[in-house]
Order: sequence, then C-alpha cells, then structure tokens
Amino acid sequence: MNAPSTRDRIIETADRLFYQKGFEYTSVADVAAAVQITRGNLTFHFRTRDDILEAVIDLRLRRTRSMLEQWEADGCTAADRIRCFINILIMNRAKILLHGCPVGTLCTELAKLEHAALAQANKIFTLFRDWLKRQFEQLGCGDESKAHAMHLLAWSQGTATLAQAFHDESFIRAEVQRVQEWLAGLSPKPARRARR
Amino acid sequence: MNAPSTRDRIIETADRLFYQKGFEYTSVADVAAAVQITRGNLTFHFRTRDDILEAVIDLRLRRTRSMLEQWEADGCTAADRIRCFINILIMNRAKILLHGCPVGTLCTELAKLEHAALAQANKIFTLFRDWLKRQFEQLGCGDESKAHAMHLLAWSQGTATLAQAFHDESFIRAEVQRVQEWLAGLSPKPARRARR
Repeated sequence: MNAPSTRDRIIETADRLFYQKGFEYTSVADVAAAVQITRGNLTFHFRTRDDILEAVIDLRLRRTRSMLEQWEADGCTAADRIRCFINILIMNRAKILLHGCPVGTLCTELAKLEHAALAQANKIFTLFRDWLKRQFEQLGCGDESKAHAMHLLAWSQGTATLAQAFHDESFIRAEVQRVQEWLAGLSPKPARRARR
Repeated sequence: MNAPSTRDRIIETADRLFYQKGFEYTSVADVAAAVQITRGNLTFHFRTRDDILEAVIDLRLRRTRSMLEQWEADGCTAADRIRCFINILIMNRAKILLHGCPVGTLCTELAKLEHAALAQANKIFTLFRDWLKRQFEQLGCGDESKAHAMHLLAWSQGTATLAQAFHDESFIRAEVQRVQEWLAGLSPKPARRARR
C-alpha cells in the first residue's frame, strides 16, 4: 500500500481535530503542526481553512456511504441492518463520551456560525436518514418509514449529547437496549430473508 | 419596576449571544457593543469572558429552577407536569430551528473546548433530570424513573439537533406527538390527583 499523500494526511488530521476540538478551535497552524508540515506546504494544498473543511466533509460523506454499503451487505434482514446503525453508539462509545457525535456536533457548530458548509455537512444526516427510511420500508412500515428514520436519527443524537454531558457509558447501553426493544415491537411480522 | 442594572444587561445580552452565535464566536467586544457600553465599562463588571459565562450559567440555572417550580404548580398530575417539559419544544420551536437547544449546544461546545465551566453548565441538565425523575416516580415508574428521565432528556436533545439541522418544524410536532403517546403508554394507572 502506498503511503498516504500529504493532501490525504492533511484531511485525515483535520477530520480528527475538527471532531476532537471543534472546527472553530482548530486553526490552520494547528493542522500543519499536527501533520508536521510547514504552514506554507499546507497552504499549497488548501488555501483556506474552509477549503480543508470542505474536503473533510467530503471524506465523511464517502466514509458514511461505504459504511452503509457494508451494513447493506452484512445484514440479512432490514431489522439486522437497522441494528448496525443502533450499535454504532456502542462501537464508538469511548469517542462519543469524550467528543459527542461527529456529525451532530459539526452541524450544530456550523449552524451557530451560519457557515455556508452547513448544507453540505447536513448531507451526512440525509444519507443516514434515506438509508434508514429504506430499511423501515423493507420492514413493512410503509408511510411511517421516514418518521421512524428521523426518530432513530434523533434518538442517536440525543443519546450522544447526554452521554457526553454526563460521561455515562451505562446510559448508552441502557438506551441501545431500549431502542432495540422499540425496533422489535415495530416488526411483529417475520423478516423477509432468513436470519443468520 | 426599576431599569435593569448594567451588570444585568450584560448578562442578559451575553446569554442571548452565547445562544445565537455560540460562546467561542462571541467576544467581550461583541457583548459590549450589543449592550452599547464601552469595553472598559464592561471590564469593570466582568474581568474576563469566562466570568461572563459563569454569570450566564447562573442565570440559566435560576431560570430553569423557577420554570420547574412553575410547572410543579401548574400541572395537576405528574403526567401533566411531564407534558410541560415535552411542550417546551413546541413553545421554543422558532428558536430551536435557528439555534438548537440552549443547554445542549452550550454543553457540547464547552465539552469540545474542555472548558472548566462544563460541570456547572451540566447542572442545568441535572436539574431537568432530577425533576423529571421525581415526576416519573409519582407516575409509579419506580426503579425505571431515572432511566425514563434520561430517555426523555435525550429525546428532547436529539429532536432539537435534527430540527435545527433540517430546519423542519413539522418534525418537532411529529416527535412531540410520538413522545406523548409513549408517555400515555407508561401510565395505564389512573393519576393520583384529579385532572383539570
């Protein structure tokens, strides 16, 4: 495998710093220092911090798409695939306790800043929403599918916000259990494909 | 009624700006300009922006306490009082669509900043949680009361985050309806005190 290009290293590093410290608290100089390149070298790749932000959002969109494709391939039933979404709160719990949800906290920050990139960042939410909506449709939820998708997305956001505020991992587990029960109650019909 | 003191005007204005623009995006000079006083006059009352933040959090704590006392007085039953909490999302929907939840967005921001005032800001969440827990206990939810309180608090946070991201008022109404049904399902027993 080739070593990542300087450009890719800048984007990966900015992605991490924007998540951990927030966009506004991360200067171009912070990114350059973390990548261990000069400010001039960084500016050669990205003229402004907003250009870096754009590349970070694109990276997150690509990663979200490939994660959703993976879940699509892994989950036998729509309920299994929705459980993949629910379980990211458990998988990422250590980071969530420290920094919240990467999507939610970035959108909240860009909204306060009235930043032009908000619409682009919101596309990550939209990817999740549309994917979840399709799963609920396959589960047989019909017209309720979009509302269920939004409900589940809101649940994940609220759980991340409070888990971060209270630094409470057991709360994440309790909420995951609760929403699993909600999901089970939604699908009394047998799933279309065989369970693993 | 006496005119508010300069100190009170500073705190009220900073409260609004921290909510609308975020703490980090509001400078001491912004506050002074909005209050229409000199920077020197402001510094006479508050030495640093962190001192203003402390006063803003204290103001929010006092307001939250008096709102909860009001709900305690207004609601005939525990379910009525919990509905007061649920309905703040409807009451404050215009602001939430623009700026999110004032408590959640401040805590998220202070957490990213690793700001010493986070613990104090979290006390606003704790006030809501403990009050809700008492209501669920009165509703007869026993050991589940704290988990229900956290669930409802998380629900309100997630709903605010997504409503802001999607600028979708109908989503707030749909979620309020959904959580009212959840609450009604929790309390099959008749309420202790007579309904209005």
